[in-house]
Amino acid sequence: MQTIEGGITAPIGFTAAGIHCGVKASPLPDGNDAPDQTPPKKDLAMILSDCDCAVAAVYTKNVVKAAPVLLSKEHLKDGCARAVIVNSGNANACAPNGMEHAQAMARAAAKATDLQAEQFAVASTGVIGVELNIATIEAGIPSLVSQLSKEGYADAANAILTTDLTQKQIAVQLPLGGKTVTLGLMAKGSGMIHPNMGTTLCFCTTDCAIDAALLQKALLYGIAKTFNRVSVDGDTSTNDSCFVLANGLAGNTPLTEDSADFLAFRDALTFVLEDAAKKIAADGEGAGRLVTCTVEGAASEEQAEQVAKAVISSSLVKTAMFGADANWGRVVCAAGYSGVSFDPTQIAVRFSSSVGELPVCANGTGLAFDEALAKAVLSEPEVTILVSLQQGDGAATCWGCDLTYGYVTINGDYRN
Amino acid sequence: MQTIEGGITAPIGFTAAGIHCGVKASPLPDGNDAPDQTPPKKDLAMILSDCDCAVAAVYTKNVVKAAPVLLSKEHLKDGCARAVIVNSGNANACAPNGMEHAQAMARAAAKATDLQAEQFAVASTGVIGVELNIATIEAGIPSLVSQLSKEGYADAANAILTTDLTQKQIAVQLPLGGKTVTLGLMAKGSGMIHPNMGTTLCFCTTDCAIDAALLQKALLYGIAKTFNRVSVDGDTSTNDSCFVLANGLAGNTPLTEDSADFLAFRDALTFVLEDAAKKIAADGEGAGRLVTCTVEGAASEEQAEQVAKAVISSSLVKTAMFGADANWGRVVCAAGYSGVSFDPTQIAVRFSSSVGELPVCANGTGLAFDEALAKAVLSEPEVTILVSLQQGDGAATCWGCDLTYGYVTINGDYRN
Repeated sequence: MQTIEGGITAPIGFTAAGIHCGVKASPLPDGNDAPDQTPPKKDLAMILSDCDCAVAAVYTKNVVKAAPVLLSKEHLKDGCARAVIVNSGNANACAPNGMEHAQAMARAAAKATDLQAEQFAVASTGVIGVELNIATIEAGIPSLVSQLSKEGYADAANAILTTDLTQKQIAVQLPLGGKTVTLGLMAKGSGMIHPNMGTTLCFCTTDCAIDAALLQKALLYGIAKTFNRVSVDGDTSTNDSCFVLANGLAGNTPLTEDSADFLAFRDALTFVLEDAAKKIAADGEGAGRLVTCTVEGAASEEQAEQVAKAVISSSLVKTAMFGADANWGRVVCAAGYSGVSFDPTQIAVRFSSSVGELPVCANGTGLAFDEALAKAVLSEPEVTILVSLQQGDGAATCWGCDLTYGYVTINGDYRN
Repeated sequence: MQTIEGGITAPIGFTAAGIHCGVKASPLPDGNDAPDQTPPKKDLAMILSDCDCAVAAVYTKNVVKAAPVLLSKEHLKDGCARAVIVNSGNANACAPNGMEHAQAMARAAAKATDLQAEQFAVASTGVIGVELNIATIEAGIPSLVSQLSKEGYADAANAILTTDLTQKQIAVQLPLGGKTVTLGLMAKGSGMIHPNMGTTLCFCTTDCAIDAALLQKALLYGIAKTFNRVSVDGDTSTNDSCFVLANGLAGNTPLTEDSADFLAFRDALTFVLEDAAKKIAADGEGAGRLVTCTVEGAASEEQAEQVAKAVISSSLVKTAMFGADANWGRVVCAAGYSGVSFDPTQIAVRFSSSVGELPVCANGTGLAFDEALAKAVLSEPEVTILVSLQQGDGAATCWGCDLTYGYVTINGDYRN
């Protein structure tokens, strides 16, 4: 498997586009288009396959589900789709006429592409509770469709962002049964990121030939080890969705369950999902660094995951990471309230980064360490917290970020 | 029942003291005592009863328990105690020689008061993983004991604080069986505050005659409705403990189970615990305002509590409260991932404060509201979020605070 250029249009038979249609306020409400002005933010994207796709999806487990989540579930229940229409700037959740607007979005997309509304997955992200400006989306869709291209992946990846600072996309290729299969991905994250669902918006494309049931199996496997192990702020959004569209155009023999080819495909899908999960954590709202927690020596993988999630979710650990403060007691404390039972006299903690690795706690007790070195280790953009429980062979890694002034700034007045 | 002046020494037969012994760094390491200098922070407190007390206690549910928690459990297992010794500035958790130092603290306190070490409850709060300076505590205890007095309650309440900005204490009196019974309380909170234990350090005193088993019953009832419904940052500390000492000197007929007098006592204890819980939330690390969430119309009280806890624990709700931003979608979102099942088309949300009350969501959909009024309502020091689920008669109130720059500042470099 190798990483290649491009994102969701890297697989054969996919095109994409992203435009500004007006859901997000334009910085130029008066129409001034002087070249030194900031261009309006993109807020509408489409992904289109040349032919029907097998589709897999996971959705938020929040009781309160946005209208596009409910509509996509309906549209994709036959395991088949052709395209995705998605807006940013408004979540269309708890909003007046939400379902009508989600349906109108799919209808307008279908009309402009000569497809059926049911062939579209629909997604929205942004503020909750504000009526969607459906008229501006309907007006923008013909222009969006006219710009669909192989080069459109970057515009599409840009158009789904909200408070994200960076695009999140990747593409990989691998040989499967004598053919080359390609997977592409684009995602958005930033806030309301927490395990226990298909976190955030994520769109995967592939030209692999695989049926919907097997694709769903691969997706559930990958999500469990990636998106369900990332947390920015503990909030599970109303809109989280992850879709995989597989159009089969690579020409491989359709994958069969438990075959080596299926496992290779599943691992490739997990790889791109993990890449997105880490990018989402690193670009968490206000984040200054990616904080990885690896727990080993747990009684099981599930227990390792539970401890690692508690550590990366702890506000006290997150603020210590912001301050590059080696306050390992908070790591031990978070492990202790994770719900996992372990012998507290056996726990060990190390911090590591590209600067080096620093043991700070062994057998449940603090070790003497060089504070200057600790500060240097923890000041890197990517920091790992290693927890050893010495209870068994279970291991798992979760990803989060530090808690900063920036998070407070972004979320103290998000609606304006 | 009426609130009276004083704290833990208000009940008959209790004295207290609080001093600076040196666990916390002195601002005057060179001994300079010029009157314009900041006095050293108090870090050692004692509460002493004139006679043995029935005792009740709840402790942290964290797997990792500080040495003083383990020692207090041992000392109090006979339901009897006489006094409390407590230091701030160091949690004596995951620290070298933790149990030895906790035992030495009890021994030194016992020696200076002519009591047995087993008659002392022991508590510590502060940084985790650093060896306790037991020598400075042992050296300070004789001075501490010499200052025990009825007036010592304020010094004691001061000496248990860490990042708290305010003392937390109260005293109440009520008639029970022809006698006047008094309850006093002091507590500390600020960070690592979350439900699911006897949160923080809390010490209650009373001259009521009541046996230990009944006292424990009253405490568990009160804790469930107060401390277990408060959250500052979701972190459950290694040291949380709540003790109640009842010395019987009011002379009332000992309370009996399910009697009207017992219920009156239990409600009085719950009242002082609720007062402390609210003060802890309002003085959460960096907090700018007390945020109360009342959920009504849930299928049960338990479900109402679960939803209210999710709302006050949400980082996104907390930052919105910091910004006085009426982002009610985050309230609905938190309710939705609380784990409680409800009909999302029935939920209603109102914000209220001393300025007024403002409905912002009804039947799961946003209402038009006056943004200026919303800002005014949410800018008050005490704000309430009212959630109605319309599923039944269950109601509960939980307390939290906003998430501010101050929290990040305090916790980004706590150890220094």
